[in-house]
Amino acid sequence: MLKDRFIADIYSEAGKLVGSQVRVCGWVDNIRDLGGVRFILVRDRTGVMQVVVKKGLTPQDSIEASYQLVKESVACFEGTLSEGPSKLKYELHATRVQPLSKPVEPLPLEPATSLEAQLSVRLDYRWLDVRNRKVSAIFVFESWVAHMFREHFRGRGFVEVFTPKIVAAGTEGGAEVFPVIYFGKEAYLAQSPQFYKQMAVIAGLERVFEVGPVFRAESHHTVKHLTEFHGLDVEMGFIEGPEDVMSELEGFFRRLASEAQTAEELRGVREFFDLSVRVPSRVPRITMRQAYEILRERYKKELPPGEDLDPQAERLLGDYAREEYDSDFVFVTEYPWKIRPFYTMRKEGDEDWTHGFDLLFRGLEIATGSQREHRYDHLLKNLRDKGLDPGKFQFYLNFFKHGAPPHGGAGLGLERIVKQFLGLENVREARLLPRDPERLVP
Amino acid sequence: MLKDRFIADIYSEAGKLVGSQVRVCGWVDNIRDLGGVRFILVRDRTGVMQVVVKKGLTPQDSIEASYQLVKESVACFEGTLSEGPSKLKYELHATRVQPLSKPVEPLPLEPATSLEAQLSVRLDYRWLDVRNRKVSAIFVFESWVAHMFREHFRGRGFVEVFTPKIVAAGTEGGAEVFPVIYFGKEAYLAQSPQFYKQMAVIAGLERVFEVGPVFRAESHHTVKHLTEFHGLDVEMGFIEGPEDVMSELEGFFRRLASEAQTAEELRGVREFFDLSVRVPSRVPRITMRQAYEILRERYKKELPPGEDLDPQAERLLGDYAREEYDSDFVFVTEYPWKIRPFYTMRKEGDEDWTHGFDLLFRGLEIATGSQREHRYDHLLKNLRDKGLDPGKFQFYLNFFKHGAPPHGGAGLGLERIVKQFLGLENVREARLLPRDPERLVP
Repeated sequence: MLKDRFIADIYSEAGKLVGSQVRVCGWVDNIRDLGGVRFILVRDRTGVMQVVVKKGLTPQDSIEASYQLVKESVACFEGTLSEGPSKLKYELHATRVQPLSKPVEPLPLEPATSLEAQLSVRLDYRWLDVRNRKVSAIFVFESWVAHMFREHFRGRGFVEVFTPKIVAAGTEGGAEVFPVIYFGKEAYLAQSPQFYKQMAVIAGLERVFEVGPVFRAESHHTVKHLTEFHGLDVEMGFIEGPEDVMSELEGFFRRLASEAQTAEELRGVREFFDLSVRVPSRVPRITMRQAYEILRERYKKELPPGEDLDPQAERLLGDYAREEYDSDFVFVTEYPWKIRPFYTMRKEGDEDWTHGFDLLFRGLEIATGSQREHRYDHLLKNLRDKGLDPGKFQFYLNFFKHGAPPHGGAGLGLERIVKQFLGLENVREARLLPRDPERLVP
Repeated sequence: MLKDRFIADIYSEAGKLVGSQVRVCGWVDNIRDLGGVRFILVRDRTGVMQVVVKKGLTPQDSIEASYQLVKESVACFEGTLSEGPSKLKYELHATRVQPLSKPVEPLPLEPATSLEAQLSVRLDYRWLDVRNRKVSAIFVFESWVAHMFREHFRGRGFVEVFTPKIVAAGTEGGAEVFPVIYFGKEAYLAQSPQFYKQMAVIAGLERVFEVGPVFRAESHHTVKHLTEFHGLDVEMGFIEGPEDVMSELEGFFRRLASEAQTAEELRGVREFFDLSVRVPSRVPRITMRQAYEILRERYKKELPPGEDLDPQAERLLGDYAREEYDSDFVFVTEYPWKIRPFYTMRKEGDEDWTHGFDLLFRGLEIATGSQREHRYDHLLKNLRDKGLDPGKFQFYLNFFKHGAPPHGGAGLGLERIVKQFLGLENVREARLLPRDPERLVP
């Protein structure tokens, strides 16, 4: 390897390393030339180090090599780690400069100031934008959230599954699917792993999770919609009701909020973002009927019963949870049957309402879940009540013919969690290479 | 929750739990009725427990409830954990029987004997097939392999990335892509995250991995091809050569082989599969030119130089590695340029050969990797030498215009690793719901 450690690793051992030879590799962040001495700032994902190149210290061929470097060149530097006068505290006195790669064209976007550019320009030049350490911190954080999700649920007996993304039918019976040309057969991209994670539970895996892409052919142009995002899905058997699923989610978010404060690998993220989040010991749960009432009485916002929450309503309920419960999270439960998919379990004797819920995080829906209907005859009825043709869902109905435990689960949007946690304005900022109706490259 | 622990958890604490009330939930594996007493075997993913239902012990309503149960019914049982005469050592003396769900049709496939059925039938009724504990063990193992992959590379400074699966161009310039209808634009399913994982390295994330679906529109009908599988991808900057990538893979597989012997969560898997694998301290590395020679001289198999290894050649090289090095793994290095994609780095001054390699595991290719070409002008030349139009790859070429470190990586097939590790005959057995040119449901 040309590089044996990250810059942050050098800083964390700097006390021991001072006076010895170290090797720093990365991107040239900046160069200051003061005649006989050049100060080169080298950057990697974890930090920035100053390299000092000067006559007497640095051999002539390396001094010359340093003149090949421009901003965003890639290079390795060897030298003595020294205490320095800069605010970085340590610097490298170079004995060797090894250029590796140099821009062949002027930079269309300066990493240092990329956050001042329009988002569409940043996304066009994402490989420069992400060199800004505040931007790369978003992706380090995202990687950590996915990790925590898996670790949390693995620790609770969940098995990771890998279900197909090419499917023969849409999950919700709707039209918002991308067709795929599949060896002359009709096929689509999966809108969610819903049917298959339920199948895995019924197949005896019992508690499963999946982290994978989700495709939605929705022509939305908002700051919270993507046509391709990553779903964090869980599904669990032998529940008594949707509360069991909510408790699991609550436990996950409580842990996420707590460990975000201390996780070593987030040290670089905490340089740029405030990671504090309020998750009370019991996240408030309000029924949709209560939500309509709160919106009407407290915020003078009228939503017809049976209608979904609009973005403003979500924000107001987020305010309500913070003000009343000091909570950044709130569950809205017992969603109307009218706006939930056919596989949602309905309330016994009160069939206009369901065992479905949403989880709002700082006023944005980040998870949707429910107890599922596991009874074959009820599933048939649900399909018919939705005006759907059971014949088209036979492959799914078959799963329920041979013993299915009561079960439920939820699907979370990874990018939305990151957006809300970090206070980003647009969910696209939390996706390395977002896709929307207009954007398909890079 | 209806269920508070898995059956294996009860066994592992059985010493403490004997004499106290426990609750067992799962699928009815079998029922024996001996007149006044019924023995019900209850199964979950982790084990099987015998439940004893009899007069005097079990209340009358629960005895009656037990008569509703048939094979594959789902139920919970409460009672006293007792030492029993059966070979299972412990049994539950039921004080409550709670049926939850019952088959509505005769079973088209018996879980207990599913492995005797044809694979296509098993896949048609996968939710019954996976109830066979030997089958579910495959997926528990697969989940663990993916976990170990991420843990290993996370521990070595790699960041997980989530790259788009809907793309504007195929990765290899070939035709084996699935077209997607994307808001009236031309789009495809990603054949690999190749371009984007390289972009992430160049964007300064430097060391990245991804676990995600990979789509190949190849009309193969073999035991090792799927049209959709899960790729384990790594990509790393600042390498000196392809050996750095091979060392990383070697380290991962050595750890996998070692921890497979002891991992607590694989206890149930080791009941059914021998998990021993030979990974020597240095996995043998033979060049493609040496491979041709070994095949010719030792196995009388002639392959024209520049040609790819066929399945027989892979198997023979697998034999060779085992016989000569006591290794289940062998790297075949310096692949011919003719059969490697344009982004592969060629050997300096020997341009018919590359810094590309494959990793064979028990005679099957499970990983393909290389040092990548990071120099803009060399990439242009490579494209032209392949007869490809650089204009079509401009979005990718752009990544290399502004400082790219030397880098390399590899893509591994999750299902193939599992197939070879467990000695499965067909890679479809290692995929919950496989897709091939004929199979799109369930």
